[in-house]
Amino acid sequence: MFSEISGGVTSPGGFLASGIHCGVKKTKKDLALVCSTVPAVASAVFTRNKVPAAPVMVDRLQLSSSSRMRAVLVNSGNANACTGERGLNDAWSMVIETAAALGIPSKEILIASTGVIGQYLPIGKISAGIKLAASALSPDGSSDAAQAITTTDTFVKEVAVRFSLGGASVTIGGMAKGSGMIAPNMATMLAFVTTDAAVTPDVLRHALKHSVDRSFNRISVDGDTSTNDMVVVLANGLARNDPICTTEGPAYDAFYEALEYLLVKLAKMIVTDGEGATKFVEVKVIGAASEETAVQAARAIANSNLVKTAIHGEDANWGRILAAVGNSGISFDPAGVEIWIGDVQILRRNYCIGFSEEDARRALSHKELTITVNLNEGNASAAFWTCDLTKEYVAINANYRT
Amino acid sequence: MFSEISGGVTSPGGFLASGIHCGVKKTKKDLALVCSTVPAVASAVFTRNKVPAAPVMVDRLQLSSSSRMRAVLVNSGNANACTGERGLNDAWSMVIETAAALGIPSKEILIASTGVIGQYLPIGKISAGIKLAASALSPDGSSDAAQAITTTDTFVKEVAVRFSLGGASVTIGGMAKGSGMIAPNMATMLAFVTTDAAVTPDVLRHALKHSVDRSFNRISVDGDTSTNDMVVVLANGLARNDPICTTEGPAYDAFYEALEYLLVKLAKMIVTDGEGATKFVEVKVIGAASEETAVQAARAIANSNLVKTAIHGEDANWGRILAAVGNSGISFDPAGVEIWIGDVQILRRNYCIGFSEEDARRALSHKELTITVNLNEGNASAAFWTCDLTKEYVAINANYRT
Repeated sequence: MFSEISGGVTSPGGFLASGIHCGVKKTKKDLALVCSTVPAVASAVFTRNKVPAAPVMVDRLQLSSSSRMRAVLVNSGNANACTGERGLNDAWSMVIETAAALGIPSKEILIASTGVIGQYLPIGKISAGIKLAASALSPDGSSDAAQAITTTDTFVKEVAVRFSLGGASVTIGGMAKGSGMIAPNMATMLAFVTTDAAVTPDVLRHALKHSVDRSFNRISVDGDTSTNDMVVVLANGLARNDPICTTEGPAYDAFYEALEYLLVKLAKMIVTDGEGATKFVEVKVIGAASEETAVQAARAIANSNLVKTAIHGEDANWGRILAAVGNSGISFDPAGVEIWIGDVQILRRNYCIGFSEEDARRALSHKELTITVNLNEGNASAAFWTCDLTKEYVAINANYRT
Repeated sequence: MFSEISGGVTSPGGFLASGIHCGVKKTKKDLALVCSTVPAVASAVFTRNKVPAAPVMVDRLQLSSSSRMRAVLVNSGNANACTGERGLNDAWSMVIETAAALGIPSKEILIASTGVIGQYLPIGKISAGIKLAASALSPDGSSDAAQAITTTDTFVKEVAVRFSLGGASVTIGGMAKGSGMIAPNMATMLAFVTTDAAVTPDVLRHALKHSVDRSFNRISVDGDTSTNDMVVVLANGLARNDPICTTEGPAYDAFYEALEYLLVKLAKMIVTDGEGATKFVEVKVIGAASEETAVQAARAIANSNLVKTAIHGEDANWGRILAAVGNSGISFDPAGVEIWIGDVQILRRNYCIGFSEEDARRALSHKELTITVNLNEGNASAAFWTCDLTKEYVAINANYRT
């Protein structure tokens, strides 16, 4: 139905972006601006952490008074989290100065921050940067923007997809930043999605919530969740398709399918780039009584430090996988469980082992691998994505502030 | 009320122990036997993992038919977990052969195993070892036994305490094995406790449940929980105190206080010996609305990989501590939170920071340190114990089986 194209947030019609250096970070790009030439329907999903950062509080307010937005400003290098009144004032300054630089109402601006927690923003540098970013806006700016939102990321994450809707060509573009602190049960990272689809606010909200549940809420790097996580989508309608105004029917299905694909792709990129990660792991739980229990079991496996270190050591320690399911809280018969690494079955029913260590080690030697667990309790399934736990993760996180 | 004495499981009257090498491990001691000269009231707490190991299943059955036990046999090096029917048969063989070697009824034997999951026990070696262990039983055998139950532990964990009850001198002794896979919400590791106190089964069960909740259920190494965890207590009554038959009054209080002290001490030893750990961390949450929310917040801090790596790096990253509380699920006002590392306050109310990095770094440089979080929401508090997350943890767990 859709095809992936090269590009990012400026691939859909009517979107401009820029990414510049303003001095929050020493030398790297640290300020991104994404702007629609016309007001866009906006929706967002935010962190469920009880300590939301100032930009999260600001955006919640902004979206509660307007469902149309024009631009998103994002700084990296400083999270503006746990910064109290002053942080909130700084966040509003970002909104107001972006509005002034773009000549649009301040109620149509969203903001985001990522980086160190508990330090005040260098707001003077950001103010100067906003003007620079506004003047640098370009239909070719998506990569600069995607670069500017990264922190410990080792590569830029952007994707775009295109599909037909009636006679209209619709494009969705997206960028994300990830690395450490990625866990499910919330937005879990920063992602910004643009589309020229015409879609109503309610339908966009519904599509975003469901696609986030099946993408960013199914990844795990270290099980923690950030104060700043958010996923924002802007839909400016410039594709001129018949507006999608219901969550049923082929138009919605086509839009949802493309959106979920794009978010899953960004989510997987985040896992691949997990701090210190050397392996990308898909955890598939099949034969579950319900999708909910499948997700619960998969999450427990993906979050287990013991499983993640065993994968790093290329050790077919299926006992840890089974024990993780045992810790997940779901009801199941352990004797019914089967486990595969790649296509090598390492556990049969009734704890029957008898796999070749050599085959298992070969399956584990790949940089991308799948762990499949069949609970043999029903027909539901779920996928979850994680990475291995390495010494480099510890090294990166032991001295993040300094 | 009580005093700590040197010793372990053979310190109370009427207990013998031994620890020998039978060949499950290459050269180290791997089989421990603890025996009371008279039947003892027994109680136990087991793992809540849904994949219990064979010895856990056997012990649950044993205790459901008798509350009096004479001996506990423990092997290390192999967990006899995820081993199905054959594992269960092997576990019963351990019971029957220990009974035969000691000349006591098989219904009075408990067993435990720890080590690799998913491999069959070398039951022939264990059978021969049981005879050797029985013949080696001695009132001085506690250290040998404590040695024989260890796996990746770097030191032997045993404690004994003594107190007066009426005119009688009562002793409690204990040993534990810990290291990786320690998490709260279950027994969380192996611990064996002996006492010559006279106490009824119901009262012993009550005391054990509560003291485990405040000791082993308040420690965290890597957040996973094992298939084999258990805490067993045997009380043989040879101190000849007036039997403690109610959970109220000074006799119970004295017994409970000593028992909790002993279990907390063993629990802390386990954390100190966490795989690859270089720091012991006490997480104290005070000013909580309830003890339950205090425990919930403390657990979230203690289980956070990001907090644990920051502590390893001696980085006063209070934002991660606050964010972990934000993830714990409790309701609180983040602006009211205060945080100390040792006696250095690193966060005041309203996100007021302004601590000296030098003071913070000095507080973090100690091998034992306390993180205190005041939620300023009420008067309840709880302590939780954990360790830092290091590269060595990854190294140990990446290749545990091999």
